[in-house]
Amino acid sequence: MAVIQAVKGTRDFYPEEKQVQTWLYRTLRRVSESFGYQEYETPYLETLELYAAKSGDELVKEQAFVFPDRGGNMITLRPELTPSLARMMAQRQRQLIYPLRWWSFGPMWRYERPQKGRTREFFQWNIDLIGAESPEADAEMAAIGATFFREVGLRPDQIQILVNNRRLIAAELRALGIAPARSPDVFRLIDRRDKLSAAAWATYAKELGLDDVQFNGIIAMLENEDLWQKSEELQRFFAAIDTFGVADYIHFAPHIIRGLDYYTGTVFEAWDQDGEFRAILGGGRYDNLVAAVGGDPLPGVGFAMGDVVISLVLEKFGCIPSASELAPAPVLVTVFDETTLLPSLQFATELRQGGLSVAVYPQTDKLGKQLKYAGRIASPIAVIMGPDEVTQGVVTVKNLRDRTQYTLARSEAAQKISHLLGGFS
Amino acid sequence: MAVIQAVKGTRDFYPEEKQVQTWLYRTLRRVSESFGYQEYETPYLETLELYAAKSGDELVKEQAFVFPDRGGNMITLRPELTPSLARMMAQRQRQLIYPLRWWSFGPMWRYERPQKGRTREFFQWNIDLIGAESPEADAEMAAIGATFFREVGLRPDQIQILVNNRRLIAAELRALGIAPARSPDVFRLIDRRDKLSAAAWATYAKELGLDDVQFNGIIAMLENEDLWQKSEELQRFFAAIDTFGVADYIHFAPHIIRGLDYYTGTVFEAWDQDGEFRAILGGGRYDNLVAAVGGDPLPGVGFAMGDVVISLVLEKFGCIPSASELAPAPVLVTVFDETTLLPSLQFATELRQGGLSVAVYPQTDKLGKQLKYAGRIASPIAVIMGPDEVTQGVVTVKNLRDRTQYTLARSEAAQKISHLLGGFS
Repeated sequence: MAVIQAVKGTRDFYPEEKQVQTWLYRTLRRVSESFGYQEYETPYLETLELYAAKSGDELVKEQAFVFPDRGGNMITLRPELTPSLARMMAQRQRQLIYPLRWWSFGPMWRYERPQKGRTREFFQWNIDLIGAESPEADAEMAAIGATFFREVGLRPDQIQILVNNRRLIAAELRALGIAPARSPDVFRLIDRRDKLSAAAWATYAKELGLDDVQFNGIIAMLENEDLWQKSEELQRFFAAIDTFGVADYIHFAPHIIRGLDYYTGTVFEAWDQDGEFRAILGGGRYDNLVAAVGGDPLPGVGFAMGDVVISLVLEKFGCIPSASELAPAPVLVTVFDETTLLPSLQFATELRQGGLSVAVYPQTDKLGKQLKYAGRIASPIAVIMGPDEVTQGVVTVKNLRDRTQYTLARSEAAQKISHLLGGFS
Repeated sequence: MAVIQAVKGTRDFYPEEKQVQTWLYRTLRRVSESFGYQEYETPYLETLELYAAKSGDELVKEQAFVFPDRGGNMITLRPELTPSLARMMAQRQRQLIYPLRWWSFGPMWRYERPQKGRTREFFQWNIDLIGAESPEADAEMAAIGATFFREVGLRPDQIQILVNNRRLIAAELRALGIAPARSPDVFRLIDRRDKLSAAAWATYAKELGLDDVQFNGIIAMLENEDLWQKSEELQRFFAAIDTFGVADYIHFAPHIIRGLDYYTGTVFEAWDQDGEFRAILGGGRYDNLVAAVGGDPLPGVGFAMGDVVISLVLEKFGCIPSASELAPAPVLVTVFDETTLLPSLQFATELRQGGLSVAVYPQTDKLGKQLKYAGRIASPIAVIMGPDEVTQGVVTVKNLRDRTQYTLARSEAAQKISHLLGGFS
């Protein structure tokens, strides 16, 4: 009988993979909390209606997993977090205390073609500052992303956060004679620049009705690295960025526009310098999100980062700690024979009470096999208790890294083992 | 426009709820790791086929969320973890090193009628020891459950783990003239005893073809608290339990049989002493699980605990730490006016570099309003930097608990604030 397969686009997290994800979660928790953000979580199932409120979204129409439940209601596996966040805020709009700083890390689902950096089930870090409108709030959000990169050991020459402002670009477009109502179309054009060939992109521009002057104006605009100086918002943004100590990670880039319609002001994306991967995180300012699901308008700024691309980037740059750093293996208490089984279990309990992580070989077996097992699970320490040792109230502690061993009174063993383990770290 | 509603049977985790769940996760992680278990995770989507392998399971036929994906494949939202665990083990059966100790905490979905203690989307702690057959392994598993209860502050007079053994009960049934092939039916009868009225239960027994002698024999068996002494497995189990230091939490109960067919030996459930809630956790020994999904048979023992019932139990017995113990609020750096905005952001960065969690009021506003905000988000400390203070390189640190305040050199502030915060815990 063949082994049943996993669903395409999902991942099995064996312990060696899960501990990397736990480290990622722990790191982004530390960064989020250091900026005063609180963790929240939304349901993984939402009504289709919630996403329908955000009209014109290919995410739901083309990529969401949507199905009727056993009661006939149309259910969606959340493809992104923001509509759920908006729903939760709308529900308690009068009770919540603004500004709100909230973050989350959990699963999302999108029915896309699985490929490198893209799975159908993935995790996403979402972080939002809601009820504040200042450019300094935008800067805080980008600084959180940069601080995370620094925390995981990515350098500014490896990763960059590129920043732009939609109001600035809309003003430039108006100056080119492009009416404000057409900005969303041109934003989409700008967003597609790196995804299409030069020729296809020019054709797309023509189809949008742009004349040559406008088209060349847009090209010039996208190459103007000083354009941000025309935006008071971006001036204040970059002044604030300096105070967060992460200016080397964050730069202006006029072609960054973001695909989603709901952004209104500053937008940003993180990219690896080699351009090998997709955007690593993306976010920006929005103003009407809560209104879309039935609440009052609330300004906010936030970003999302999926776990798949960042994991590839961290792997490429050698930033993932070793397995023994990620999750120290337990001390192994061996079982000498049937007469020592209970004393060995008892001794393991004593070690645990001393704060150690301890696995007991769960049955009698050849001692050599048990010690080999200790090596294979990377236990740094094995404990042996033969019948004589039980009688004498002592244990043998083997340091499996340097092959030294000690015979110790049981009462002293926890402290000695802690000391030996401290020497490893 | 009315606010869009959440899906029935799901939960919104606002920060105050999420921090309780994080504490639960952290506690069961600590307990799992102290026994040498490694964390893993399985996909949340699995093929329907995976569950079909476990025949006769009402979980899939009646309660699972099953739907076709956009490619037409039948997908299931995992209703339990064990089939996924079996699949992952079967896939790497030759590479994995046994015995394996694995644990997990993640979401499951069951389409049930939402009620107190029951949601359609819930989290479950799963923990398994695989590749070991001894009663001591069974005892370790029950001891882990008991250690968790002790860690969260539940006492043995509030919660109990009740233990039985299916081989023991099968032997007793054989002694009553009930053929082994009929054991599963009678197990189900025993499992239903507390769910049916005495009359309905007697009728059910008759329908199974049990005669009066057999029926009365079963009743007598279910009242025999010394029955475990007939089982060498349970004798060894209880001898081992003593060594784990949790004997006061774990007792023999001949009516505990578990609903699932795959258990083969020792089984156990945790119940609150008042009988107010459903089973808090349940598990036992299984022997053929991996074989069912295409691998070789592997013996194992494990349990699962949902987050919904345990949360109600913890609440009832006042075991949930206070909000300020669960997630300390950040220090609030206020913003005096526009001229001090950047120095305030800069100073917040310095405090973060000193290891503190710091929120900055994200725009200029009346100081009174900002201090009121500090109180409402439970910040223990607020920092004020007026223009004079910026010039002099000092800050005012307000202890919001006792209303004392200090004027300090900027360079000394992080240490002083850490000291003040230390005094709170």
